[in-house]
Amino acid sequence: MDPVTIKDIARALNLSTSTVSRALRDSYEISPETKRLVMEYAERLNYRPNPIALSLKGSSSKALAVIVPQIANNFFSQAINGIEAIAYNRGYHVIIFQTHESYEREMANVQQAVARRVDGLLLSLSSETSDVAHLHALHAQGVPLVLFDRVAPDLPVTQVVADNFGGAYAATSHLLQTGRRRIAHLTIPPYLSITQERLAGYRAALEQYGVAFDENLVRYGTFGPDEADELVEQLLAQEPRPDAFFTASDRLALGCLTALRKRGIRIPEDISLIGFTNLPAAEMLNPPLSTVTQPAQEIGQLAAERLIELIERKQKASPPATVKLPTTLLVRESSAPPVRAEADFRIGL
Amino acid sequence: MDPVTIKDIARALNLSTSTVSRALRDSYEISPETKRLVMEYAERLNYRPNPIALSLKGSSSKALAVIVPQIANNFFSQAINGIEAIAYNRGYHVIIFQTHESYEREMANVQQAVARRVDGLLLSLSSETSDVAHLHALHAQGVPLVLFDRVAPDLPVTQVVADNFGGAYAATSHLLQTGRRRIAHLTIPPYLSITQERLAGYRAALEQYGVAFDENLVRYGTFGPDEADELVEQLLAQEPRPDAFFTASDRLALGCLTALRKRGIRIPEDISLIGFTNLPAAEMLNPPLSTVTQPAQEIGQLAAERLIELIERKQKASPPATVKLPTTLLVRESSAPPVRAEADFRIGL
Repeated sequence: MDPVTIKDIARALNLSTSTVSRALRDSYEISPETKRLVMEYAERLNYRPNPIALSLKGSSSKALAVIVPQIANNFFSQAINGIEAIAYNRGYHVIIFQTHESYEREMANVQQAVARRVDGLLLSLSSETSDVAHLHALHAQGVPLVLFDRVAPDLPVTQVVADNFGGAYAATSHLLQTGRRRIAHLTIPPYLSITQERLAGYRAALEQYGVAFDENLVRYGTFGPDEADELVEQLLAQEPRPDAFFTASDRLALGCLTALRKRGIRIPEDISLIGFTNLPAAEMLNPPLSTVTQPAQEIGQLAAERLIELIERKQKASPPATVKLPTTLLVRESSAPPVRAEADFRIGL
Repeated sequence: MDPVTIKDIARALNLSTSTVSRALRDSYEISPETKRLVMEYAERLNYRPNPIALSLKGSSSKALAVIVPQIANNFFSQAINGIEAIAYNRGYHVIIFQTHESYEREMANVQQAVARRVDGLLLSLSSETSDVAHLHALHAQGVPLVLFDRVAPDLPVTQVVADNFGGAYAATSHLLQTGRRRIAHLTIPPYLSITQERLAGYRAALEQYGVAFDENLVRYGTFGPDEADELVEQLLAQEPRPDAFFTASDRLALGCLTALRKRGIRIPEDISLIGFTNLPAAEMLNPPLSTVTQPAQEIGQLAAERLIELIERKQKASPPATVKLPTTLLVRESSAPPVRAEADFRIGL
């Protein structure tokens, strides 16, 4: 079957090819109704613009760079899929770089992306990155840039994030409501915006329920392999022992589950466990893992839309802003309420 | 701490900086002993060449393109990590493209990579790709190319693969040895080399044990979401019902587990399950999932080494060949032998 062309769409909808072309590029010259009509029809016919043809036509390279710490992280691979869905439909190629959590490699990737003349960058900071001078410089040079997930609030660019505070608050509140009092928080390196937001949500929930914050119950991981076991060991050595673990990443959640089960600790009877993760296997784990999930794909889509707006500098390009998307707490067996709730516990919400 | 330089290594080992530099680039001018000495010392000091400096020096762009179907697939994200480990140590950047299992996007990605002047390409075919004329053309133009995992045997380039036949043979034999006779095979699209190799291994084991091949027990998936449920439904409707499932991908294994458990089927009592997967959560699933694992990282490393050899056209660059790395069967609870083995079953191996 021949691929669907703009001409086919124009003929079917009785529009000019130039109107269809501009509608597909989301031009401000075309009315919202016409755009919707064209886009829906194009979607139904599985129309795909030809990025090669587009890039040969214009002076632009029609490519976006995505720079992430680690593609093996489900959150990032899902976010990238969201980015690519938007980019492809708007005629942009996507090239992906990994920083492997290294500040040096993040800087090198940014330079590479610019050297390869991409039209814009989507970036999520490495856990080593405490100084974002390289991004200020990029922005000052006029290179379109959007941050997502791990962001730098001081940078005057659009930043798309999940509601990390709200997710951590919901998870911690749920643990408190089910009678847990010694809630350990295994988290990721402290520089990151997402670490700070999740920690703040955890602390706010404790405060709301009148439980004192104990910094000995917070442990920072490094994204290294097999680090959860040692952190769990340290936490279990405390008196009184934690009765719940709230972890801030996929890897820590899985590592924590492994470490607890290895020690014969029953979940949730002895210790409740909640992750902050988009692990597709969460529901099939033993026990099924309660998690805070992030709208990874939507974050990627929105970040890509904002970046393309910026690149194409359309009349209505949104001003730089931080856009926050809601997170969702999914309660599964790993944090099910104990059979007998503690009688003296009053729910504070 | 200042980063370690070539000068530091040269001083410590009492060699010239040019010898150290050439040893680190694996030049044929340097003896194997010296290379080993330099590389081990560099590794110990965590020496990292500066890719930016390297690319400014030479005429080469010092970049490799990696084109894979889907980074959300654990096998590919692990293979890419292997590629990056080698590339970075040899001073190459890696840029990653996804085809999303589309032939058209694979062709577009190849063109993009070439247009962005990478030094060479590492590619794993999309499941739609039955015609590799675009790769023959690339090879004819003299662009260094190495295939991995999903390969095209007719293409005269180096191809790095896992022993898919051996892995499937081992999994199927194990199921037969534990008394299973109606072994369903849920697999991936038929064009792919890996699909054919795994199917061949499955058939060879059946033949070895004198069990007739039944094509009704083989189902091809598409990598689409949630497709396993429908395939499992079809298979369970058969008379006699399958007593084991051997799946050819991460997603199918997890989908199959979900579908079987949803229907209240006990694993392994009613039906055994083995995946072909590098899922990090396999051990923590309920029940722990038996799998054939592939040396994903090593495949990536070897493919990158071969590609860099080809790019640098060293005297001793290996001729094109198919390199096969062993797979490993990990038996876990999902395929544990039934309590009472069938008495009339004779182990044929």
